[in-house]
Amino acid sequence: MTSKGETTKQKILADATPVFQIKGFTATTIGDLLAATGMTKGALYFHFPGKEAIGVEVFRKESATFMDFLDEVLTAETPAASLDNFFRAALGKHRDTGFVGGCFFGNTALEASDIFPVLSQMVAEVFDAWIEKIQAKIEAAQTLGEIRRDLPARQLAELVVATIEGGIMQSRLLKSELPMANSLSSLRVLLELRLRH
Amino acid sequence: MTSKGETTKQKILADATPVFQIKGFTATTIGDLLAATGMTKGALYFHFPGKEAIGVEVFRKESATFMDFLDEVLTAETPAASLDNFFRAALGKHRDTGFVGGCFFGNTALEASDIFPVLSQMVAEVFDAWIEKIQAKIEAAQTLGEIRRDLPARQLAELVVATIEGGIMQSRLLKSELPMANSLSSLRVLLELRLRH
Repeated sequence: MTSKGETTKQKILADATPVFQIKGFTATTIGDLLAATGMTKGALYFHFPGKEAIGVEVFRKESATFMDFLDEVLTAETPAASLDNFFRAALGKHRDTGFVGGCFFGNTALEASDIFPVLSQMVAEVFDAWIEKIQAKIEAAQTLGEIRRDLPARQLAELVVATIEGGIMQSRLLKSELPMANSLSSLRVLLELRLRH
Repeated sequence: MTSKGETTKQKILADATPVFQIKGFTATTIGDLLAATGMTKGALYFHFPGKEAIGVEVFRKESATFMDFLDEVLTAETPAASLDNFFRAALGKHRDTGFVGGCFFGNTALEASDIFPVLSQMVAEVFDAWIEKIQAKIEAAQTLGEIRRDLPARQLAELVVATIEGGIMQSRLLKSELPMANSLSSLRVLLELRLRH
């Protein structure tokens, strides 16, 4: 494809992302995507075979962006500071959107789990990679005595991800920062996260 | 409506419930509901004005059933035993469905939050009532020294609900009991839930 074609393709994906995020994979129609991109059906179908293909590409791009985000925020001076930084950054990300849209991967998980095996496999891989990155920091923090050691790092990492997903769900529902912020501050206390000042 | 009409109405709601649970509110079509109930369009529309009305009634019934479930499982000998009983019962409920369908209210929250204000208000009320019931048991457990006291009961109750929602999401995604079971056993340790034997 020409460079101009590639630019158009990227623009379609960028315009389609908030539509999938807010309406969900199933409810999004080709009509929604035409409205969001301002393109004709013919032009859109020239670049993608259909809604599913656009959805899968949007998912791939969002996954890559999220992995970059995790790597970026999980690199503070100490493992505990990295985890704390991740908590702050996750809350800030959702605050910036006014708690609209929620977690792209959590939304896709709930939609895809029972009916779209390909998509749900893709979501499972994102969650697994996310949990592994958190687990690595928890393990390092446990070694340094910056976090409680009486539970395995993997189990604590799963708890962190589950709690954040549930917190985002509640904050999105109430359009309030409180549920997510409270869950994160509870996690700090319960994990016995010790930051050096 | 005659008693026979009421019976048909209840049968429609019962048949429609798993469809809404698995496909979600938006993706469920009148065609799906006709297939699930085995009725003609005319017969279905005689009892309900449309999909939305059926969805709202299914939601009301599920809410009432869930509140009854909570009241039933939260009545063990002690507050801590009640909470532990709730954890077991919640896991058992989802194990019984093979982790298909997930949490009806969590699913509806994610679908409705940004686009269906009426439904999202109804979901918010369910979550609030759920959190309050857990909070009451945590408060009582704190008073008896059966649970840690350094965090407010409301905040811990929000954490419990968020963590369970996130755990159900992961267990549904992986069709495995482990994520939900691990989250619950982490909660028991982190809340310092003390059961008397």
